[in-house]
Amino acid sequence: MSYFNQQSKIQYEGKQSNNPLAFKFYNPDQVILGKTMREHLRFGVAYWHSFSANGSDPFGAGTYARSWDQYSGMDLAKARVDACFELLNILDVDYFCFHDRDIAPEGNTLQETNENLDVVVGLIEQQMKATGKKLLWNTANMFTNPRFVHGAATTSNADVYAYAAAQVKKALEHGKRLGSENYVFWGGREGYESLLNTDLGLELDNLARFLHMAVDYAKEIGFDAQFLIEPKPKEPSKHQYDFDAATALSFLQKYDLLPHFKLNLEANHATLAGHTFEHELRVSRINGVLGSIDANQGDMLLGWDTDEFPTDLYSTSLAMYEILLNEGGIGRGGVNFDAKVRRSSFEPVDLIHSHIAGMDSFARGLQVAAKLIEDRVFENILDDRYASFKTGIGADIVAGKANFHTLEAYALQNKSYESKSGRIELIRSIVNQYIINA
Amino acid sequence: MSYFNQQSKIQYEGKQSNNPLAFKFYNPDQVILGKTMREHLRFGVAYWHSFSANGSDPFGAGTYARSWDQYSGMDLAKARVDACFELLNILDVDYFCFHDRDIAPEGNTLQETNENLDVVVGLIEQQMKATGKKLLWNTANMFTNPRFVHGAATTSNADVYAYAAAQVKKALEHGKRLGSENYVFWGGREGYESLLNTDLGLELDNLARFLHMAVDYAKEIGFDAQFLIEPKPKEPSKHQYDFDAATALSFLQKYDLLPHFKLNLEANHATLAGHTFEHELRVSRINGVLGSIDANQGDMLLGWDTDEFPTDLYSTSLAMYEILLNEGGIGRGGVNFDAKVRRSSFEPVDLIHSHIAGMDSFARGLQVAAKLIEDRVFENILDDRYASFKTGIGADIVAGKANFHTLEAYALQNKSYESKSGRIELIRSIVNQYIINA
Amino acid sequence: MSYFNQQSKIQYEGKQSNNPLAFKFYNPDQVILGKTMREHLRFGVAYWHSFSANGSDPFGAGTYARSWDQYSGMDLAKARVDACFELLNILDVDYFCFHDRDIAPEGNTLQETNENLDVVVGLIEQQMKATGKKLLWNTANMFTNPRFVHGAATTSNADVYAYAAAQVKKALEHGKRLGSENYVFWGGREGYESLLNTDLGLELDNLARFLHMAVDYAKEIGFDAQFLIEPKPKEPSKHQYDFDAATALSFLQKYDLLPHFKLNLEANHATLAGHTFEHELRVSRINGVLGSIDANQGDMLLGWDTDEFPTDLYSTSLAMYEILLNEGGIGRGGVNFDAKVRRSSFEPVDLIHSHIAGMDSFARGLQVAAKLIEDRVFENILDDRYASFKTGIGADIVAGKANFHTLEAYALQNKSYESKSGRIELIRSIVNQYIINA
Amino acid sequence: MSYFNQQSKIQYEGKQSNNPLAFKFYNPDQVILGKTMREHLRFGVAYWHSFSANGSDPFGAGTYARSWDQYSGMDLAKARVDACFELLNILDVDYFCFHDRDIAPEGNTLQETNENLDVVVGLIEQQMKATGKKLLWNTANMFTNPRFVHGAATTSNADVYAYAAAQVKKALEHGKRLGSENYVFWGGREGYESLLNTDLGLELDNLARFLHMAVDYAKEIGFDAQFLIEPKPKEPSKHQYDFDAATALSFLQKYDLLPHFKLNLEANHATLAGHTFEHELRVSRINGVLGSIDANQGDMLLGWDTDEFPTDLYSTSLAMYEILLNEGGIGRGGVNFDAKVRRSSFEPVDLIHSHIAGMDSFARGLQVAAKLIEDRVFENILDDRYASFKTGIGADIVAGKANFHTLEAYALQNKSYESKSGRIELIRSIVNQYIINA
Repeated sequence: MSYFNQQSKIQYEGKQSNNPLAFKFYNPDQVILGKTMREHLRFGVAYWHSFSANGSDPFGAGTYARSWDQYSGMDLAKARVDACFELLNILDVDYFCFHDRDIAPEGNTLQETNENLDVVVGLIEQQMKATGKKLLWNTANMFTNPRFVHGAATTSNADVYAYAAAQVKKALEHGKRLGSENYVFWGGREGYESLLNTDLGLELDNLARFLHMAVDYAKEIGFDAQFLIEPKPKEPSKHQYDFDAATALSFLQKYDLLPHFKLNLEANHATLAGHTFEHELRVSRINGVLGSIDANQGDMLLGWDTDEFPTDLYSTSLAMYEILLNEGGIGRGGVNFDAKVRRSSFEPVDLIHSHIAGMDSFARGLQVAAKLIEDRVFENILDDRYASFKTGIGADIVAGKANFHTLEAYALQNKSYESKSGRIELIRSIVNQYIINA
Repeated sequence: MSYFNQQSKIQYEGKQSNNPLAFKFYNPDQVILGKTMREHLRFGVAYWHSFSANGSDPFGAGTYARSWDQYSGMDLAKARVDACFELLNILDVDYFCFHDRDIAPEGNTLQETNENLDVVVGLIEQQMKATGKKLLWNTANMFTNPRFVHGAATTSNADVYAYAAAQVKKALEHGKRLGSENYVFWGGREGYESLLNTDLGLELDNLARFLHMAVDYAKEIGFDAQFLIEPKPKEPSKHQYDFDAATALSFLQKYDLLPHFKLNLEANHATLAGHTFEHELRVSRINGVLGSIDANQGDMLLGWDTDEFPTDLYSTSLAMYEILLNEGGIGRGGVNFDAKVRRSSFEPVDLIHSHIAGMDSFARGLQVAAKLIEDRVFENILDDRYASFKTGIGADIVAGKANFHTLEAYALQNKSYESKSGRIELIRSIVNQYIINA
Repeated sequence: MSYFNQQSKIQYEGKQSNNPLAFKFYNPDQVILGKTMREHLRFGVAYWHSFSANGSDPFGAGTYARSWDQYSGMDLAKARVDACFELLNILDVDYFCFHDRDIAPEGNTLQETNENLDVVVGLIEQQMKATGKKLLWNTANMFTNPRFVHGAATTSNADVYAYAAAQVKKALEHGKRLGSENYVFWGGREGYESLLNTDLGLELDNLARFLHMAVDYAKEIGFDAQFLIEPKPKEPSKHQYDFDAATALSFLQKYDLLPHFKLNLEANHATLAGHTFEHELRVSRINGVLGSIDANQGDMLLGWDTDEFPTDLYSTSLAMYEILLNEGGIGRGGVNFDAKVRRSSFEPVDLIHSHIAGMDSFARGLQVAAKLIEDRVFENILDDRYASFKTGIGADIVAGKANFHTLEAYALQNKSYESKSGRIELIRSIVNQYIINA
Repeated sequence: MSYFNQQSKIQYEGKQSNNPLAFKFYNPDQVILGKTMREHLRFGVAYWHSFSANGSDPFGAGTYARSWDQYSGMDLAKARVDACFELLNILDVDYFCFHDRDIAPEGNTLQETNENLDVVVGLIEQQMKATGKKLLWNTANMFTNPRFVHGAATTSNADVYAYAAAQVKKALEHGKRLGSENYVFWGGREGYESLLNTDLGLELDNLARFLHMAVDYAKEIGFDAQFLIEPKPKEPSKHQYDFDAATALSFLQKYDLLPHFKLNLEANHATLAGHTFEHELRVSRINGVLGSIDANQGDMLLGWDTDEFPTDLYSTSLAMYEILLNEGGIGRGGVNFDAKVRRSSFEPVDLIHSHIAGMDSFARGLQVAAKLIEDRVFENILDDRYASFKTGIGADIVAGKANFHTLEAYALQNKSYESKSGRIELIRSIVNQYIINA
């Protein structure tokens, strides 16, 4: 049976095509800078938004028309697996991502819950073998169930902490079984509602202990996935502990976790934290922790996580620029669409349109970024701008040979210095030309 | 001569007083938790806002009526010293803070500039000896002069970097001469206008090199002031490198600077970064880097640094709570009024009113916080809320004796767990009672 | 049976009381400026937050422990009525407010739905007669059901528009039957997700037609409640049509609706729109449309409608100041707690604590505002500040006797003008004293 | 003499050109939808940003290298006139805009100030005749001088009000003399710092009186320019009275000023108010008050008016779409670059680069919008989406034939209704294709 009434894979037709069910930019086999688009982008579909969500929001009930919703319980779980692999096939996307609770319903006991999970993981395993699709990352949902009302690894209740540990243990085992390439820790409710009733120090210490246990257990069972922390500043908590990339770095350093973790950066989380997406990627890149991305976009005039499908070509171009310059590119990570169709885009075909929109926007971003790199646009700008650090006193500074005595002596010569314009307006014009012409 | 036409020191008259030129809460000799208010608060007046500024903003010229503005050049600089010590005396405030360029005009060469500085530092030194007033901290202004258009320690121009080094070298020497208790590094223009023309990695490396040189030079000359980084997220740059406390911690850890620096936290910078002031103080406190504060407040509906005098009693109470719990309290730091009278409060007496407003608000905050601590209000809340981490599996977790096997085994017992309300609404009511009754 | 295990009404014990189940400021019989607190404040409980909600948020399931949730369907609806009147009694609150869908479940047809409503309205009517409690306002929920995905009176689907009209017709009839003092139009989904697919002109015209029909029908059936528009800028829509008070005024004027409507102002909606609550109240007051308020508060660092119980005494004091100066005070309106306990405050007693917190905060605000008025604090400030408009050229301006010729002639005299400080810092200090001492 | 060292006019070279001193999209003679680009866009250069500003910001001194700054006083004023007309010629731009204080220095008396103005207006008049350049709009700067610290038409000081009237009287006379096509009222300091010391009602009444006097005087002297209000929500005041388009409409309606005013909409002001630029244009368009635009862009992560040159093609395309659909297009208004080069773009050539960037971005926006209209992209979407309002009950609603009785009767038929997806994701993909392919 078909859940999408789309009989064939989406094909690349090129940017002049008017066919809404065709790629205009994404051509999986096109080679750019030595790799295919498919290899560069490693797209992933998010199970929760596309198969488990219903379009509800704080002011209204679900709207999504999903024919698998005719089922319930484990039958629904199985139908969602079929829907997932059908969509992956239609879109020609290689990867998917899930939380444990997306794929299987909870039972009355942890044992039952785990059994449900085992069953669905088995079905997924079969489909993966049959289709060659792969798991980009899995994770544990430790925020929906009321037990996590005060957090999971940062809960005020030790019993809940233990439960969370058991949940992640199982998720790591399933990750290993399915060959997941990454394992993600998004904070969920790891944060606080108010400082007035929060022991910040204890909660962060407990979080670090939890992550160390996860690292140890993964090592014990031989699960060698890349571990990823996903920063977000607020929502659902008033303050989320992994506020942004710099905060996550500070935490990882303090608790000796830096060798074990990279970051999963999300565009909408970046802007909620007051940063551009490219800023978060750059900070991660220069610190060697750019691991994977959650591709979406927020509404810059709204203060919550709208998780819209990414269509802003400025953002996708600059994101892909950072990824291309990252050592190993996106590496074992990928471009996961942590994005949901609007509540008003409730038809099944909107799921296809929206993924095409996102894939095309990232494909165009890749083209633009690659052309900018081939033409050394930003590299030439930087070479010129920072030229003074290549010779003389500048080279001494960079080499660590300067001190306040030598620098003061230099300054006291009162030489006229050359000040160059930063040329931002011209550079932005150039970016526009690349977006249109690339 | 008098610049303020205020013949006597401001006296404490108590909260029923209607005298606008009296303290209602600040009573320097009142003992609270074993120290006088004076010792707890260590108030400082900011030279730049109170003596060197003129009330201009991006849309208008200066408005402040300041009789010292009848002078110019070095005469003006000298008049400002007199005005500063007069105001310190009127307010009975012990400390002041300045940037090098606040106190003396620049000359045609660095040599001349330094000579001007030496002269004014000499005058200040005399006044300090004569009055017993002290320097809370000094710093170098590396953002006003056009040479710093692209930054100072993170400039794209090595000549400017050398100049900045010479400037800080001199400032450290003056700090030593005046017995400054702290030295502050506020980022100024250390940040970027756009990532499109910025070598983020090089700029941050250069900043770390600069700070190491400063540490080395202070040690060389025996200047043992506490060194402080002051976080701010944006303005004047689009992105400031010391975004918030966590970002500063991340930077200090990466570059092995953590042993040498604490933080100077500012209320308005906290809120611009998306945090409460008490959050920044708490993060600093639990990381052992709460050094000093810049007391002011922003307008939560405006997106720039308004630097208003602090009058919000919620904020001052929670700030003082963090300071009282900090090991050593405010220590060598202090409560510096990095605050300016509104452009529409241009009369000299507004400078007195506004400092009284700020001092009273912090004094009330101190009373409220001390009473909350004496009554163990928050301590009791936390003891109850986190009780499960004191015994059994919770104690094992905190002691580092748990792992995913033991925790899973515990969770698989499916014991019912006790979930307690966080009681935020009640706690907020209690805080209101303390603000009114303390 | 009892849903709250609270055996007696909450009593006034005064501000030194430590009893969490006592009022510290709210004393219903205390007379202030000629009316009792009860008459000034006309508190209301919001049915939706307190009886129909479950504490779910976009990231998690419901948490609220509510013993009436043992029931379902119409039995649940009936249990909620009992719970509502029990809480009104405990709190000694006179008013409540509801949406149609809060009180009764939808049936399979509009007829069934209306029948369910009729039954519950009958029960409410009985309880009202038995207890003397009154309906502050009712309204129609036209945002939860998926049919309203594109709006109700601004939908793109005429069938949905008709349905919405039928729903409001019924709600007006129920309002009349229950003697509701007001009827509220909150926008719900009247707004847009994106301008790209929105006919803004048509949607606004249709909204105006809808409101005119409502006015006509209320007149027809003799329902003389005060009609209220409730501004909100965003959420659930990206842009809500009733953005703020000024926008609502612009709409009401354009469509000749101003004679028929006043505004219901909400604190959290004000701040989401970039205004203080007192601003929205002032704008409404000077335009004669301050009708009623939704009492709550937002988190100034979060960008969504958090609907927290109001505890900020600055906000409640300035809100009550505007209400006291309003002609007729709050009039037929009231202070409705459109506020929800935090998801982490899930116990029944939190509903009591939180209403006490809100009632006490508004009672204190009333005391502060009344004292400010009695002492003519702001009146004296304004009299002095605007004195120049009382005589001479200023009086001519206000009297409409000036023109550009006379004003230029006056200006060309080049008289020195007197500029007075606005004294904001001093005024804020004074407000602090009133909050503490009132 | 030349201030720009640019020997020839900027020419159109097409989008493949790499020449930074060439237009890639702006081709003044290209005909689009029946008019040339020159006629559609009516570009204007802003005197204040480009000739009178120096690049200072609240944290630093001016940086702009402008060779006319070798002069001072009236010589400087004259040099700026030459610089202005030189840049207009280089850019082939037809219009410019100025405040009175941009073009001439203030004297010791209003008489002297006016004489200075007369001289420079005479010079401008000569240059206009010689070159054919035109004045898009002029206005009075009533915010820079300290006398306006509390506002101009909303000041608390009647003498200042008179002065402002004299200033606008003179500006209207100069507008007439120079044949200005518009006259703009931007609020400047018409707003409040705090409600605590503000008589909101009096200030708004006075503002209305002022505008009526301006209307009367313009009529008296036969100055038939289009009068424009320019909304802005905040800065320099905490609250600006002309917050946004809807607020301005509300004000104009209340005070019977709507027949006399249209709006000048600015992109950065729109986003500071929480709206998209296209929203403000749409609101204005459907209310018949879209008069002119201030073309720039803000930084969505910063909370102040950055006035950057517009380069965001999404924004320029949707802005031009609204303008093309406006009756008469931009009409007597124009596209004025109320934009400043970054403080770090201080070389004269940056002024040329930045205007090219802005002109090309609007030219591209025009191309995109025209193609969208030619292809009826949005029109088809709307026709389909709102089809139900064309027939049956929907047509009755729009025709005003429906009432709550007929609508309820319709709804009680319980017909199944057709709900259509809003298709936002697909539509955004289509917009991307038009931006790239137009």
